[in-house]
Amino acid sequence: MKYISLLGATGSIGLQTLDVIREKPEQFKLLAISAGKNIELVRKIINEFSPELVSVQLKGDCEKLKTEYPSGIKFTYGTDGLSEVAVHEKSNILLNAVMGSVGLHPTLQAIKAKKTIALANKETLVTAGHIVMAAAKENNVSILPVDSEHSAIFQCLQGEQHKNVNRLIVTASGGSFRDLTREELRFVTVDQALNHPNWSMGSKITIDSATMMNKGLEVIEAHWLFNLPYEKIDVLLHRESIIHSMVEYHDSSVIAQLGSPDMRVPIQYALSYPDRLYYETESLNLAKIRKLHFEDMDFQRFRCLQFAYEAGKVGGTMPTVLNAANEAAVSAFLLGEISFLDIEELIEKALVRHNNIENPDLDAIQEVDIETRKYVNSLF
Amino acid sequence: MKYISLLGATGSIGLQTLDVIREKPEQFKLLAISAGKNIELVRKIINEFSPELVSVQLKGDCEKLKTEYPSGIKFTYGTDGLSEVAVHEKSNILLNAVMGSVGLHPTLQAIKAKKTIALANKETLVTAGHIVMAAAKENNVSILPVDSEHSAIFQCLQGEQHKNVNRLIVTASGGSFRDLTREELRFVTVDQALNHPNWSMGSKITIDSATMMNKGLEVIEAHWLFNLPYEKIDVLLHRESIIHSMVEYHDSSVIAQLGSPDMRVPIQYALSYPDRLYYETESLNLAKIRKLHFEDMDFQRFRCLQFAYEAGKVGGTMPTVLNAANEAAVSAFLLGEISFLDIEELIEKALVRHNNIENPDLDAIQEVDIETRKYVNSLF
Repeated sequence: MKYISLLGATGSIGLQTLDVIREKPEQFKLLAISAGKNIELVRKIINEFSPELVSVQLKGDCEKLKTEYPSGIKFTYGTDGLSEVAVHEKSNILLNAVMGSVGLHPTLQAIKAKKTIALANKETLVTAGHIVMAAAKENNVSILPVDSEHSAIFQCLQGEQHKNVNRLIVTASGGSFRDLTREELRFVTVDQALNHPNWSMGSKITIDSATMMNKGLEVIEAHWLFNLPYEKIDVLLHRESIIHSMVEYHDSSVIAQLGSPDMRVPIQYALSYPDRLYYETESLNLAKIRKLHFEDMDFQRFRCLQFAYEAGKVGGTMPTVLNAANEAAVSAFLLGEISFLDIEELIEKALVRHNNIENPDLDAIQEVDIETRKYVNSLF
Repeated sequence: MKYISLLGATGSIGLQTLDVIREKPEQFKLLAISAGKNIELVRKIINEFSPELVSVQLKGDCEKLKTEYPSGIKFTYGTDGLSEVAVHEKSNILLNAVMGSVGLHPTLQAIKAKKTIALANKETLVTAGHIVMAAAKENNVSILPVDSEHSAIFQCLQGEQHKNVNRLIVTASGGSFRDLTREELRFVTVDQALNHPNWSMGSKITIDSATMMNKGLEVIEAHWLFNLPYEKIDVLLHRESIIHSMVEYHDSSVIAQLGSPDMRVPIQYALSYPDRLYYETESLNLAKIRKLHFEDMDFQRFRCLQFAYEAGKVGGTMPTVLNAANEAAVSAFLLGEISFLDIEELIEKALVRHNNIENPDLDAIQEVDIETRKYVNSLF
């Protein structure tokens, strides 16, 4: 039995994690959850899964829930609440699907508490990969990827040796605007950006997919997860999102993982690893799909991807700037305060301005994160 | 160091095996070879690789070589010679690339002598899969596939559990005549049949590729190699031969192995397994290939594939009839004695006529093999 702590239970990945847990009551037990402000959904989750510990964002919501469920469930809130859920005594796996840099601290707490980490929070590795992977090694804890691309690579590495890996090939659908020119991108709306061709995801990640920043963050994550230099991580445009990613070995053999776009498959894999459990769905029918397309990535067209490679190679606090500037800019775009192409302009400005700090500790990372958001928000 | 016995050294797979051995003198040492009648090529191989034991088909050629190389090399001939090469005392791996049912006996001898088997001879498993796999299990010997499709499946199974396999997907290029109607097939010539779109192979296997019998024999081999019922083995038409085959797991994840069509890659993998060695070649460039195509297999169009599934499911001596009838018919086609579509007609007649023997021993298999060839040869 896997006893699960789930951070970000009411988000897109969180809800799909609940789908997986629901289907396998003999394998998975939900012990603790965190959520934001969607208290109605929290109530539903409590009523269905009876977790022992529930953390919400606001103190007021926490107090309200306490009066509604007078016994048996512990309620808490805020960032301390996230950490409490992450290290719940009885859980042996933390699925971290919280959004943003708030996900970093609870991951580190859970690693120190020897929990297996199923990681969907990008910021954990993007901003503090050097700290997180060192802590995981020191505590002999596995970091299992949840993202479909990293899960694919992780699956393609099973039974293989790291020394024989030649290159990772991360596939990218190209996002909502893959067929638009830069000129056409100038006038796209939020609604258009939120209309992803293959995946149904949260709004922040859908915009990141349209700017290709999502792929850039994935490249940085892959660098840390799989311990490979950026020169050995390629991105390939593959519109159908059927091949989720690949690993090329030094004998020229390429191993790929394929599937229909359904996040529940990599979520279940992370929760069931090293086993695979049955998952009820239609088989992949390549004859019905007929064709898979592949194109080289255009780094002029997708400047955010270029920024990510550069920030990743520089290392230190540069990926934190990349991520914080992106979060601030995407928020502004979603609120209609800036245009789509402003996103990359703001990120570039933040990166160019930053004096990099090598091998930063958590305080330095947090400081740069806050400072970058402030700077980006001052630009519009 | 892997010490290698090689059966069928002068054939297409044999020569590519020599290419692999040539490139890795610190990993591979060729100890013993068998060849047919191409004595000029045997001399070249002897001069380059200095094997300790050489077997040829004819006694006369053996005597001739003995006088040319008076010391240091042992020469032998015929079927006894094949077995002697297969069990060469110092070798730890037998690569069996001999053509036809003559490959069966030496494989079994080598299994009993605890040699690892790298298997390129299809008939070994097609006609006697039940005997060979039982012997391999009893002697705790690995049967490593050399064929690109089976090697792909074997690679996709690394680090995975058999119980979690849902289905094997064997890809098929469709061969030389994949775009012809059955009407058009009536008048095709031997030269047209020998012009395979993707792979450069021997003539028998190229014809088998055009009739799809090659894929049928591979399905039967896969049944034995991977211990799965025929219902869990599918064939998918994939013209580019870039995805060499796939494994679908019961969580709907599909793992595929891809590469440029180059038999030296699976040959090297079989010889280096469980390690992978560097292989000097261009990286697979999917962006350059641009599209991969997939189509359902047409069992009306490719009747030999249907015959193979049926013979495989019946089991016993039926696959021996399938194989022997096919060998006899393809020989006749290559000699211009029958037309292309006669191949499947003759095979069907042989299968329909046969009274199946369940769980046959080697003598029964050999008898049915000889009898079937005689019968097919009597039909034209």
